[in-house]
This record gives sequence, C-alpha cells and structure tokens, in this order.
Amino acid sequence: MSTAAPRAPGGSADAPGRFDDTPFIRACRGQSVPHVPVWFMRQAGRSLPEYRAARGAGSILDAIAQPELVAELTRQPVDRYGTDAAIFFSDIVVPAAAVGFGVDVAPGTGPVVAEPFRSAADLARLRPLEPEVDTPYVIEAVDLLSRSLDVPLIGFAGGPFTVASYLVEGGPSKNFTRVKSLMQSDPGLWHDLVERLTDMALASLRSQLDAGVAAVQVFDSWAGILSPRHYAELVLPATTRLFADLEASHPGTPTILFGVGTGELLGLMSTAGPSVVGIDWRVPLDEARRRVGAGVAVQGNLDPAMCLGSWKVAAAETREVLDRAGTTPGHVFNLGHGVLPETDPGILEQVVALVHAEGRAGVGTLQ
Amino acid sequence: MSTAAPRAPGGSADAPGRFDDTPFIRACRGQSVPHVPVWFMRQAGRSLPEYRAARGAGSILDAIAQPELVAELTRQPVDRYGTDAAIFFSDIVVPAAAVGFGVDVAPGTGPVVAEPFRSAADLARLRPLEPEVDTPYVIEAVDLLSRSLDVPLIGFAGGPFTVASYLVEGGPSKNFTRVKSLMQSDPGLWHDLVERLTDMALASLRSQLDAGVAAVQVFDSWAGILSPRHYAELVLPATTRLFADLEASHPGTPTILFGVGTGELLGLMSTAGPSVVGIDWRVPLDEARRRVGAGVAVQGNLDPAMCLGSWKVAAAETREVLDRAGTTPGHVFNLGHGVLPETDPGILEQVVALVHAEGRAGVGTLQ
Repeated sequence: MSTAAPRAPGGSADAPGRFDDTPFIRACRGQSVPHVPVWFMRQAGRSLPEYRAARGAGSILDAIAQPELVAELTRQPVDRYGTDAAIFFSDIVVPAAAVGFGVDVAPGTGPVVAEPFRSAADLARLRPLEPEVDTPYVIEAVDLLSRSLDVPLIGFAGGPFTVASYLVEGGPSKNFTRVKSLMQSDPGLWHDLVERLTDMALASLRSQLDAGVAAVQVFDSWAGILSPRHYAELVLPATTRLFADLEASHPGTPTILFGVGTGELLGLMSTAGPSVVGIDWRVPLDEARRRVGAGVAVQGNLDPAMCLGSWKVAAAETREVLDRAGTTPGHVFNLGHGVLPETDPGILEQVVALVHAEGRAGVGTLQ
Repeated sequence: MSTAAPRAPGGSADAPGRFDDTPFIRACRGQSVPHVPVWFMRQAGRSLPEYRAARGAGSILDAIAQPELVAELTRQPVDRYGTDAAIFFSDIVVPAAAVGFGVDVAPGTGPVVAEPFRSAADLARLRPLEPEVDTPYVIEAVDLLSRSLDVPLIGFAGGPFTVASYLVEGGPSKNFTRVKSLMQSDPGLWHDLVERLTDMALASLRSQLDAGVAAVQVFDSWAGILSPRHYAELVLPATTRLFADLEASHPGTPTILFGVGTGELLGLMSTAGPSVVGIDWRVPLDEARRRVGAGVAVQGNLDPAMCLGSWKVAAAETREVLDRAGTTPGHVFNLGHGVLPETDPGILEQVVALVHAEGRAGVGTLQ
C-alpha cells in the first residue's frame, strides 16, 4: 500500500474519530475520564477457556490468517471482562513472516527463525511490506472488528529492537548476545536492518489504522536489555521516526510504546513521541510519571503474577497501582506485562470492576 | 559449625588482614588505591580453554567437591588475567544440595530441583547447614587457596530470593510465577523459608571466612524481578540480617551485594548493609553511585556482551564505565553480569590492563 492520506484522528473506516470520547482514547490523550480505562496485554489468549476452545491446536500464524477467527478471539476478552479497549489478535513477527523471512512461532517457545539474519545479504530477505498483498487478512479482520466493536480497537507492531532480536538471535534469547554484537560490530548494517524493520512496522500500522484501529501500541518488549546509551544511539532514532511518520499520516492517533525492564529508558522512550509509555511492574507509577514527564500518559502496571492467587492479593496490588497513579489525568490501567496463561479469568474480571470503581486519574477533573 | 569468634577483618587463616592493603579490599572500603581493581564474575569458567581442559565433562557439583580441582579452577583466571581478586569456584546451590534438598546443576540449563519446595512440610528438607560436615570440601579448598594466592579470595553465597526461586520454581524461571505466588499467598511460610536460607548462607559464608576468604559476595541475581515494595517487604529484612550477622561475627569484612536488573532496588540494597553494591550494565555508574549513596562502593558494570567482538568496542565501552565511575574512591571494576562462555579471553586480558592504566576512582587521592 502507499502512504495513507491524512484522516481524522483515531477514526475507524466508517466513522472517523467515533471513539474519541471513550475513556481509553481520552486517557491516552491525558484528558479527563468518567472512569480509569483498563485493558490487559495478552487479554486474548490462553488464560481464557473460550480462547482455547476456539483456537484448537493449530499454529498461531495460521490462526492469525483467519479474519473471522481473529475477530472472535479479539472480542472474547472484551465480552467477558468489559475492558475499555480491544487488542488486535496477531503477533509482532507477522510482517517479517509475511515477506518470507522464514519465521514460525513455536508453541511454548515463541518466534523461531530458520535462517537468522547474519549479514548484509540478508537484507534482501526483508523486502518492503505491502499490507494489501502480504497481510490482507489483517486488514480484513480489523475491518470486521472496527465495524462491530463498541470499544476502541488497538492495533500493534513490534518495536525495531525486539523484532531485530528475533531475526538475529533466531528465536527468544536470554542474553541477546548476537544482536548486541551486531549492533556494536556493524552499526551501518544495524542501521539498515532497523530502518527496514521500522518501515515494515510503519506500513503495517498504517494499514491497520486505515482499516479502523483507533490507537496503536509498539511492543519493543526486550529493549530493556540495553543500556540507556545504546538505546539512545541505536534504537531511539528509528523509534522516533516511526512515531513521527505515524503522526504525519494519521495525525492525532493515540500511540503507546511499551517494553519490560525499561526503568532506565522511560525518559528516552517518552522523547520518541508516543502519547503513552507502557510501564512494567518494577517502577511505581508515580516515579514512572516523573520519568516520562508531563504531557505523556502512562499505562500499567500491575505485576501479572499478582493475579495468580487470591482476590485479596490482587485487590490490594490493584489498589496500590491506582494509588501510585494518583489523580492526574493520563493513566490507562494494564498489567506490567502480558496475562500469564495460568491466570484465573475471574480475577481479571474483578480487577476491571475495581479499576472502574476506584481509579481516580483524571476522573471528575475538568480538562 | 558454631558461630565464629570475632577475628581480624578480611583476614586469612594464617595471616589475619594480610590483604587489607590490596587495591580490591581498599576499593571495597572506599579507600584510595594505586589502581582501580578488577575481577570478573564467572572469570573461572567456560570462556577459558584451561578451564575446559581441567573440568572435562563431569557434573559441576562433582567438580566443586574436589578441593585441588577447585583451587586450580579458581587460580586460572588470576594467573591469566592478573585480576585483583579471585572468586571461589563453587555454586550458589551448594548448601541446599549439601543438606540433601535434591538439587542438581544441569549443563546448559542451571540448577534443577527434583522435588520443588511447595509447602511447610518441605521446610524439614532444609535442615541447618553444618559446613564442617556438609561442605568440608569448600573449607579445604578455601584453605588451600588462601595459603597460596597473592590476591584476595572472594567467597560467596546465593541471596535469599534467588536460592528460594530455584527451590520453589524447580529450576531457572522466566516469570518467577511460583515463587511470587508463594510470597504473596503465604507470607509466613515465605518468611520461614527465607530465614532458613539466610541461615544457610550465613553458615556457609562464615565457614569460608574462617577458612580464609578475604571478602564475600551475595549473589541475589534475580531479585530484580521484584517490585521495590515487594523486595523491601519480603527480601530486604533477611538480607539486612545476613549482613548484620556477618558483621557481628567477622567485623570489617568487605561484603558485596549483587543482582541484575536491580535499577529500582539499588537504594534498598544499599540499606541492607553491604560494603559494595554490584551494578549491572543498565544503570550508568554515576547514577548508580547516587542511588547507593555515599559510604557504599559500587562494582561493575561493563555489559558482558561488549567483550564478544573487537577490542575497539570493548575498549570504548570500558572507558565509558571508567568515565562514569569518576574519581571518587570506591569502584571495583567488573562486568555487569558473568563472563559469557563465548568470550575471547584475550579481550578480558586487555580490559584488565586498560582498567589498571586508566581507572581513576580513588587513584592518587588521600584518604
């Protein structure tokens, strides 16, 4: 696809901006809200019995290519929990897989790459993404969902470091030694790789926005493995360009940038230009707000492990997050990372109700 | 063993305090140094060809039980690199294994526990450590080494959270869900478990000190997975007690507390009472010094992955660490985590020389 023409912020294909007045979109923009909005990373996933029933045992990449199934899996947690947003059911390696890089997602492991990225010759295996041709099923599923959902749909893409890490390491990594070595030993090649992945993310996000998602999240999940200096030099420029180009084509779209273990990077991530920075559970939200600065919202940050036991524990920990978020507008409640597969959905249901009842960030303020 | 009688700080069995004037011990104490001292976590390990030759293919727990072999493996990196300290070759699960909890160390995986800790009944499987009976080989190897080494020998133990995580999870973990669940669901049992592990660490460290180690490091490697509040409530008290009890029995002994991903915990870790806080590569040392506060030294913090490529990269990154460490006394150079197995020892040799030549923290100051 070509660059999208500018259009109304956060609008869906048939009703531009129709979610502008929802708590989720308003909180992303730092506006007052009737209640603090909440959604959960990986809310569509193995923690839900209805997900396991609908998904069966097939490959996740096969499931992602079936628009009706994707729409169903995306809707399930919204119907069950009453979350304030839906997160599109997909995977961050979809664009790379779609252009034929040779990526699969192994159950219980994660993305695996048959022939990892090793040299400049491998750049040829990362041709530009043409969403209408390469991932029409994404566009079709977003279109289906944006016509039927009553809450904003969040589209997403992988951040440049995280996608690069899978392609270079060949799969999930503990120490990220290969990708760090590439970044240091050949900054020129790293630059070319990251720019190409940023273009792919941009094309994918634009196609999702054109099809009707109301906001987007960039998952640079593993960027926290880098020192602030390396992040600033080798990842932040491409990330900044990604948000600037999104703003140019889709002005006013709420955008979220998230990673785990990013305590030292929050200030830098904030300068990349997202509307919201996602925070894991390690940094209390009052401190996180200081690091991201005024004018940028925060999302988070209940430790997913706190939802594995009793409601008493989950309630106390949820209240702690709400307390730290304070009353200043600009808080989207979420977990600090994805829902763990062994989570009891009943607990998450109660978390949603508690956040709606007791969250105070931006509630009742005039703005 | 019984509680050791107070003795000269950092002394070896035959010459109390004989390393007090070495750069390593002086830097731990925030004193001036002739050069910035350096050692590497996992300097005795698979990165060295002489290690691989001496170790062969047997279990690491078998190797640890052979004092002459342990002494040889401990000495190898000191001889090759000229490091300012030796780190005792052992493993943090040795005490738990020695009292019969059923722990093995699987090559390429790490500690694995046949029957993980699940309930109060499992406390009975963690009887007090009697070092002379349970780990005489540790005492014998320390004794051998402290009589022959020209540099201080660092003893060590696992920190309470990290050892507990192996026992509860049954092995290395990604999300630490079982141990976090136990901490939240049964704080009383968690308290009992942590106190027992702290007693074991204390007994082991005291036996190492009595046999001649000049300093000790507590590896609470995975504590950074916890939020600051949970660390403060559920790990810090036992850690504080550990350092206080060490100070009571072995006053003046330099002590180091280390973990990865602990950026948010550094201030808390400093209050636990160590002489030195170990810093991973994510927090620049100038910022780390602010977090640990005056009067506590820092150790670190070159990213181990920066030693995998060219000397040019390793040199630039080493200089960056030295710059951030500044001129204030109290810097022990180290990596931010253990030496990676694929590291070229030639690079580490050059790092040592560079730190000795260019490090400035406490060099030439009067104190």
